[in-house]
Amino acid sequence: MKNFMYYTPTKVYFGKGEELKVGKIIKEYGFKKIMLHYGKSSIKKSGLYDKVVKCLKDEEIEFVELGGVEPNPKLSLVLKGVELAKKEKVEMILAIGGGSVLDSSKSISAGAKVDFSPWKFSIGEEIVKDRLPVGSILTISAAGSDMSNSCVITNDETLEKRGFSSDFNRPLFSILNPELTYTVNPWQTACGVVDIMMHTLERYFSNGDENEELTDNLALGLLKAVYDAGKVVMADPTNYDARATLMWANSLSHNGLTGCGKVYFMAVHQIEHEVSGMYDSVSHGAGLAALWPQWAMNSYKASPKRFLRLAYEVLGVDYTPDEEKAIIEGISRLKAYFKSLGMPVTLRELGVDKNSLPDIAWNAMFRARESYQISSL
Amino acid sequence: MKNFMYYTPTKVYFGKGEELKVGKIIKEYGFKKIMLHYGKSSIKKSGLYDKVVKCLKDEEIEFVELGGVEPNPKLSLVLKGVELAKKEKVEMILAIGGGSVLDSSKSISAGAKVDFSPWKFSIGEEIVKDRLPVGSILTISAAGSDMSNSCVITNDETLEKRGFSSDFNRPLFSILNPELTYTVNPWQTACGVVDIMMHTLERYFSNGDENEELTDNLALGLLKAVYDAGKVVMADPTNYDARATLMWANSLSHNGLTGCGKVYFMAVHQIEHEVSGMYDSVSHGAGLAALWPQWAMNSYKASPKRFLRLAYEVLGVDYTPDEEKAIIEGISRLKAYFKSLGMPVTLRELGVDKNSLPDIAWNAMFRARESYQISSL
Repeated sequence: MKNFMYYTPTKVYFGKGEELKVGKIIKEYGFKKIMLHYGKSSIKKSGLYDKVVKCLKDEEIEFVELGGVEPNPKLSLVLKGVELAKKEKVEMILAIGGGSVLDSSKSISAGAKVDFSPWKFSIGEEIVKDRLPVGSILTISAAGSDMSNSCVITNDETLEKRGFSSDFNRPLFSILNPELTYTVNPWQTACGVVDIMMHTLERYFSNGDENEELTDNLALGLLKAVYDAGKVVMADPTNYDARATLMWANSLSHNGLTGCGKVYFMAVHQIEHEVSGMYDSVSHGAGLAALWPQWAMNSYKASPKRFLRLAYEVLGVDYTPDEEKAIIEGISRLKAYFKSLGMPVTLRELGVDKNSLPDIAWNAMFRARESYQISSL
Repeated sequence: MKNFMYYTPTKVYFGKGEELKVGKIIKEYGFKKIMLHYGKSSIKKSGLYDKVVKCLKDEEIEFVELGGVEPNPKLSLVLKGVELAKKEKVEMILAIGGGSVLDSSKSISAGAKVDFSPWKFSIGEEIVKDRLPVGSILTISAAGSDMSNSCVITNDETLEKRGFSSDFNRPLFSILNPELTYTVNPWQTACGVVDIMMHTLERYFSNGDENEELTDNLALGLLKAVYDAGKVVMADPTNYDARATLMWANSLSHNGLTGCGKVYFMAVHQIEHEVSGMYDSVSHGAGLAALWPQWAMNSYKASPKRFLRLAYEVLGVDYTPDEEKAIIEGISRLKAYFKSLGMPVTLRELGVDKNSLPDIAWNAMFRARESYQISSL
């Protein structure tokens, strides 16, 4: 087990009706003026927006707002947010939405404390040293940004999508009510299932066969629960326990827990960021589903025991003395599972042009790695 | 899955040599004068005390100190600590030791902020609203107090042992170097293994068979890793990976993770607190080992599916269509495992007088429950 730091200070309020506490929670922290940040119309249609506004008014918390966050959140909107936050002197940002809204909020929160573009944090030219606190009400189980130290932004001028890690990116609090995800459509639900699994799989598949039993057991237990819950929600979108499993797994998959003591590189994520940075129509989860089977077939020899445990303990492969056969059967089952969720399992299905592959590969190998290393200092 | 709050703000520095960062960590928080709190002679014998003192001096951090914490930490020493902390105006308390030193530190840290005895927190007469921050360097893997919200103190006048929960009890930071536990003797190591397993088992065995797959999977994965590591360390006390597994599991077992979304009561802990409150020579882990098998035999019908999973997934029981047989075999295997670690599995072995059983039972049923409820408000 390698040395590690574990730091997950985000206070999580989990369960039915918890979003109605938002005004009291913010008041307890003493914030008097905040910024609401959200996506397009869904939180207004669902009534969540009105509920939040009422909670804030009940506690006499002033707010300004900025909507319009898109999937693969854009730097241009972040810059508007920074301007608004500075002008209005807001004390915190309340993200209402999924990972994109959270990441946009995180970037704004860091940008509001400096006199340069927060893109510099994304590309590792500057290190975050302060930020406005971010709170969240999560509406999609996927990215785990509600507890994570990550923030992924796309520069809409250069089409670069860059993630950077900093403990300043961890939200102050996150409110997770699984019922708020009942209306997430099957496609986005499936993208979420893949993203959650991939956050854990990419940590689980560290190089070599070093004994990391505790962390690996937690990872496999989480993966099995998500695998089961994913099937349930596709058939029964308002199944509370399954939605709750996905939501809590979304947080635990990316808050650091499933990687403690391991060395990992999130390779598929690095490649996917290049794909969806270049092709804006690609959803992150779908991109991951399309990439993982190929990555796995090319990588299993580096960590055979872990691929074997995945096959047996999560994917229900029957025992065979031929380890390689079991491993390949496991990979093929997970690919079939992604397909059964309606996910693509090749880049072709996503409309990625063959001619862009060399650029994607080069960028994932060199450009992304560079910023990743600098920002994790 | 029931609603829950998850809050584990403690920053964990885990791994070889991490204790040498202690001066820099404290300086980063800006504390200039602290109190060292520890047990008897072991940290001086091992050289840890000298290392810590050097780190503090290198960073020009002033300190006062109070040693002498005993197992089942006593209120009388806590009161001395409170007096010293107030008199010397220390800004934080650095606990160097195991759960007893941590709990003593937590009680002092709360007592230092009020003008009444912190025992009132233990019995639920008062609620903690402020405290000095506590940091720790852990030397025994057992109680999980390094991340937990618990604090258990024994009133050496009345022989009452009382635990109370509060987020103020969570340490600011904890330094966990598994190497520091290499010299923990087999008896204390075994007590630790039992305590770790019991913190998870008592959360795992919630009433009924409600679907709590994610949390249950994490619990079982953790239990399996501890079960395996326990065997290894008894044979090979300086096995780093096994010591590391126990140490990290010690934290995760009691920081809340293995109980998320579940309703549980820590029944065996409640009874054990009465036993070791009354019999000071009883180690907490040994008391738990002596109580659990009887508790399990009397309780399995309330949660048969969970007992079954424990039997199959952790204890390696062979499949049988007779569920009750498998469950009883599982309980008997865990009892045998405790025995193999050198633990008692009956109260008689601990020297508990039969005549004191009614008092133990009454206190566990009524006195303890009362304070537990009040303090968890």
